[in-house]
Amino acid sequence: MADAETRWTTHRHEKKRRLDALGLSEATKIVDADRIDTVLSTLIQPRDRVSLEGDNQKQADFLAQSLAEADPALLHDLHLLISSVSLPAHLDVFERGIASRLDLAFAGPQSLRLAQLVEDRVVTIGAIHTYVELYARMFVDLPPNVALLCAEAADEHGNLYTGPNTEDTPTIAEATAFHDGIVIVQVNRIVDTLPRVDIPGDWVDAVVVSPRPYKLEPLFTRDPAKIGRVEILKAMLAIRGVYERHEVVSLNHGIGFDTAAIELILPTYGEELGLRGRIAKHWVLNPHPTLIPAIESGWVESVHCFGGEPGMERYVAARPDVFFTGRDGSLRSNRVLAQLAGQYAIDMFIGSSLQIDGEETPPPSRPDAWPDSVERPTWATTRTAAGTAAPRGSTSPRAKERAAAARSSSSNSSRRSRPEARPPSSIDSTPSTSVPRPAWLCRRS
Amino acid sequence: MADAETRWTTHRHEKKRRLDALGLSEATKIVDADRIDTVLSTLIQPRDRVSLEGDNQKQADFLAQSLAEADPALLHDLHLLISSVSLPAHLDVFERGIASRLDLAFAGPQSLRLAQLVEDRVVTIGAIHTYVELYARMFVDLPPNVALLCAEAADEHGNLYTGPNTEDTPTIAEATAFHDGIVIVQVNRIVDTLPRVDIPGDWVDAVVVSPRPYKLEPLFTRDPAKIGRVEILKAMLAIRGVYERHEVVSLNHGIGFDTAAIELILPTYGEELGLRGRIAKHWVLNPHPTLIPAIESGWVESVHCFGGEPGMERYVAARPDVFFTGRDGSLRSNRVLAQLAGQYAIDMFIGSSLQIDGEETPPPSRPDAWPDSVERPTWATTRTAAGTAAPRGSTSPRAKERAAAARSSSSNSSRRSRPEARPPSSIDSTPSTSVPRPAWLCRRS
Repeated sequence: MADAETRWTTHRHEKKRRLDALGLSEATKIVDADRIDTVLSTLIQPRDRVSLEGDNQKQADFLAQSLAEADPALLHDLHLLISSVSLPAHLDVFERGIASRLDLAFAGPQSLRLAQLVEDRVVTIGAIHTYVELYARMFVDLPPNVALLCAEAADEHGNLYTGPNTEDTPTIAEATAFHDGIVIVQVNRIVDTLPRVDIPGDWVDAVVVSPRPYKLEPLFTRDPAKIGRVEILKAMLAIRGVYERHEVVSLNHGIGFDTAAIELILPTYGEELGLRGRIAKHWVLNPHPTLIPAIESGWVESVHCFGGEPGMERYVAARPDVFFTGRDGSLRSNRVLAQLAGQYAIDMFIGSSLQIDGEETPPPSRPDAWPDSVERPTWATTRTAAGTAAPRGSTSPRAKERAAAARSSSSNSSRRSRPEARPPSSIDSTPSTSVPRPAWLCRRS
Repeated sequence: MADAETRWTTHRHEKKRRLDALGLSEATKIVDADRIDTVLSTLIQPRDRVSLEGDNQKQADFLAQSLAEADPALLHDLHLLISSVSLPAHLDVFERGIASRLDLAFAGPQSLRLAQLVEDRVVTIGAIHTYVELYARMFVDLPPNVALLCAEAADEHGNLYTGPNTEDTPTIAEATAFHDGIVIVQVNRIVDTLPRVDIPGDWVDAVVVSPRPYKLEPLFTRDPAKIGRVEILKAMLAIRGVYERHEVVSLNHGIGFDTAAIELILPTYGEELGLRGRIAKHWVLNPHPTLIPAIESGWVESVHCFGGEPGMERYVAARPDVFFTGRDGSLRSNRVLAQLAGQYAIDMFIGSSLQIDGEETPPPSRPDAWPDSVERPTWATTRTAAGTAAPRGSTSPRAKERAAAARSSSSNSSRRSRPEARPPSSIDSTPSTSVPRPAWLCRRS
C-alpha cells in the first residue's frame, strides 16, 4: 500500500534521488563537461520524456551529441520532444536505440532521413505540431522529465543569461522545473555576474560549460541579390493593394524574398505613396537586415522578435526604442510570446519560408521556371505549401508554421529531386487533407 | 537635429531621468508606502500607457487606489491597460481625470458603471480583448511605459515571489521591462531570501510594501449545494455522450455548476462506465475543490492552472505530482501559458461563467425559471453568452473568454434588472454581431 505522504510526490522524490546520485544540490549545480556521459545517464532514465532544445535557430548541440553517444544499455526508449529536428545527432539518438518516440514541430534538413526512419519503424512519431502546440502540450500531457537546454552564460547559482536568442528556453524550463523535472543547461561560459537574468537559477538543476559555443543558425538570406525584379513588383502590388487599402499597421512577416522586398521598398515606394506612419509601424519579426532602411527612415516603431539573427546584435542593441532589449542592452526574444503577438495582436500575417537560401540553387519561385504540368503559383498560393496537410481543426496560426516547415524541408533542391517518401506508417495522429491558407487581415481590417 | 546617439534611446533616457529623480537604481529599489504619491507622480507622466494589474483573481489594489488618489494636475490623460476592470478605483481614475483611455478584457462588477462612463465620454475604450490578445498587444502596439503589478514578496534586489497566483505578472513585467518601461510592484512583504524567484529582480524598478495584502478574489463557488439534480443529469449526459464517445483525455473546463458537476461524478458515474484512465486525465483549470474526488481516486494525472484558488493552497502543495509547483512547494500558475495550453494542447474546451455565485440569487439556469418569451437554453447555448458580440474574425478561444466575461458581468441579479446600457459611442473597434460558440473537440477527436 502506497504511503499517503509519498504517493503524490513521486516526481519530486525521483528527481532528488537522481540529483543526489551526482552530488548536485541548490549549492552545487555546475558539472564538468568531461563527466557529461555520467551526468546524462544518471539524470535521465529509460523511458523518460526528454525535451531537447533545438529550434530553427539555436541548438543545445553539445547535449544532443552527448546524448547520441550515450550507452543504449543505460539509456533507451526515450521519448524526445524537439521543435526542429535539424542536427544529425537528433536522429542518431534513434538509430542507436537510445530514443524511440518523437514529438516535433518540423524536421528541416533532416526531414528525408526522418521519413526513412519512420518507415523503418526506428522512430515513432507522436504528432507533428506547431511550435506553440508542442510547448503547450508540455503543460498538459507531455511534461518533460528532463530538459536539455542551452544558454549564453550562467552564474554559480544557475541563473541563466540567454543573450539575444532567448527564444524558447524560458518556456521549456518552466514546463520542466515546475513539474519536478530536471533542467540541464549547456552554457558557453560561467561568469560571476550575469549581464541580466533571463531564467532564475532555482529553475535550473545542472549547468555544463560546453567545449564549443552552442550552434546558432542564421535564418536570413546571405544574398540579397536574390531579391529581384519580380519580387519588387510583387512587393509594390502588395503595398498598394493590401497594406495601403487595409491600413496594415501591425504585422507578422515571415522570412523570405517576397516579404524582404516589401520591407526594402517602404522608404522609397511606400514614401512616394505617403504611407509612412499609416502602415507597417509595428512588427512581429526577427531582426532582419532588410528592415534596416525602414527603421532608419523612421517607418518602424517597434519590433518584437521570435529569436535573434547572427550579425544583427550590435544594430539591435543600438536601437532600443524599436527592439525589446534588456538592461544589458541586448535583445530579449521570446518565441512563445512572439507567436502569441503574431497571432492575436496584428492586422496581417504573411507566412514564408524559414531558410530562404537554398544550398545550391533556390527552389523555383518565378512563373517561367514552372513546368506546364504544374499550376502556376499565384501570390497567394506561393505562401502555402502545396500538398502540405494541416492537422484536423487547423486554424490559420497552425497553417502558418506548417506551411513554413514544409517549405523549409524542401528548400534544398538536391533533396527535392529524390522521390517523396510515402506517408509514414507509424504516425499516431492522422492529419486531414485540408490545405492551409494564409491568414489575411486577422484584426481591425 | 537629433543626436544620432540618443535618437534611438529616448525610452531608456526618459526611464533613467524618472528613476534618478527618486534616487532609484539597481541597488535601491524599495520605496516607502508613505511616499507612494510622489513615487507615482514621478515615475508616471501624463499621457503614459500604464498597465495596471487586475484580472479576475488578483489585484494590485494598493497601487490602483494610490493612482486614483493622485493629483490630476500632475497625472492626466493616462492610457490604462487593465484585464479586468473590477475595483471602484479602476474607474475613479477616469472620473478624476487621471486617465482617459482604456484597453481591457472585461469589466466584471464595474461593467454598468463603465458603460455609463463611456456614454458620458469620460472613458474612451480602445478595444475589448481576450486576456491573451491584450497581453500580446503589449509586445506590439501597446507596450506599457509603466506597469503597476503585485506579488507576494520581494527581496532587496527586487526579485519577486508570487506564490500560487503567478498568473499574468511575468508577462506584463516582460513586456514593460524589455521596452525600457518602468516596473513598479506592490508586495505583501520584503524578505531576505525568497522561497523561489518568479520574476528576476533586474526586470523590476521599484518595490513598495503595501499596507495590506493585495486583493485576491476567490472564483469558485462557496456553495456546492447549488450543484443540483439538473446539473448532475447534464453531467451524466456529457460524460456518456461526449467525453466517452470522443475520448476526451485533455480538457479545459471553465468554472461553473455544470462543469463542477462533471468533475464531481467522475469517481462514481465515470467509474461505473469504466472510463478511468480513458478520459479526463489532463486538465487546464484552476485548482477547483470539485476536482478533489477525481484527484484522490486517481483519475487526474496533471492540472495546469491559470491562477490559484484561495483555500486550496495546502491541498495543491500536497499533490505536486498533479499540480505545477515550485521548489518552495507552492503552485506556479501562468495565465498566458495556461491559455495557450487550453487552446492548443487539448481535446475539448467548455467555457462557463467565471464567478458562479451570484451575490443574491443566482441567474436563472434551469428551464422552468425561463419566461416563455425567452428561448429555453440548451446544453450548448447555456455555455454561450446570449447577445454577446464577438470581435471580428472571432475564433473559439476569443469566444470563450468573451462569453465568460459577459456572464460574469451579468451575474449580479440586482444589476440585471436595470435597463441595458446602449452601445457606447466612443469605442474604436466595432465588434461584429456573431455569437460565440463553444469549441468542441479541437484536436485528436
